[in-house]
Amino acid sequence: MRKAIALATENVVSGLGGPFAAVIVRDGEIVAIGVNQVTSTNDPTAHAEVVAIRAACTAIGDFQLTGCVVYTSCEPCPMCLSALYWARCKAIFYGNSAGDAAEAGFDDSFLYEEVSRPLDERRIPTKRLLGGEAIESFNAWRAQTDKIEY
Amino acid sequence: MRKAIALATENVVSGLGGPFAAVIVRDGEIVAIGVNQVTSTNDPTAHAEVVAIRAACTAIGDFQLTGCVVYTSCEPCPMCLSALYWARCKAIFYGNSAGDAAEAGFDDSFLYEEVSRPLDERRIPTKRLLGGEAIESFNAWRAQTDKIEY
Repeated sequence: MRKAIALATENVVSGLGGPFAAVIVRDGEIVAIGVNQVTSTNDPTAHAEVVAIRAACTAIGDFQLTGCVVYTSCEPCPMCLSALYWARCKAIFYGNSAGDAAEAGFDDSFLYEEVSRPLDERRIPTKRLLGGEAIESFNAWRAQTDKIEY
Repeated sequence: MRKAIALATENVVSGLGGPFAAVIVRDGEIVAIGVNQVTSTNDPTAHAEVVAIRAACTAIGDFQLTGCVVYTSCEPCPMCLSALYWARCKAIFYGNSAGDAAEAGFDDSFLYEEVSRPLDERRIPTKRLLGGEAIESFNAWRAQTDKIEY
């Protein structure tokens, strides 16, 4: 966690992005690190945890991080939290709370609220279109015998 | 949406990944497409929407997708939904519902539940560590005058 905190502070000083970093560890060894690179790489998904997950999966050569523990300098936003679930990590430790983040100008509470809201009550208008045709993609998946489940 | 559906079906046939694709449009023109590449790129964050957002931001040269509409072949999971909010897109259209996805073996309802749960009731153990030290990263951010807010 001390390394994650140090990397988060360094990331501000170097101007790479926001004050966020994550370190992924397996069996006591660091597998990968990630720092926030949203503004420097023009990538709104380049939060520290997502960057670290991608780097760790590349290092391990797998699309799952089974047995890995994630140390992140701040409580994950819903995007990063979901990414950590998809990556199937073992445990999450965080330093700053979401409240600390909000006080520093990084408030993601609206996003936790939006994710819990019915589709027709969300801030970004969301509508279904061509459901009858879209199902063809899932039918193709069902019919495919040579596929990698995930 | 027809293009997103066709790309999702193609993605299964080509073996690149799951039956998901997204198309991002601005002013009636396609800015970028994205297909699910979780298994082919060993990246659990490479859902169609995330891949499309990253490609669109690269194409536009910005970390926001202001004015962009997203057509995704399936209702977004919480990771992708959050990514779409961070990207600040204008509207979301989806083809398959989350229920259709669950029937095809892609059930993300547990994730919507987890995101809404208090930290100490989540499936992945989540704990705070060194909060007093972590705040230094936010203090560095506050002190930094030459920074790009996002």
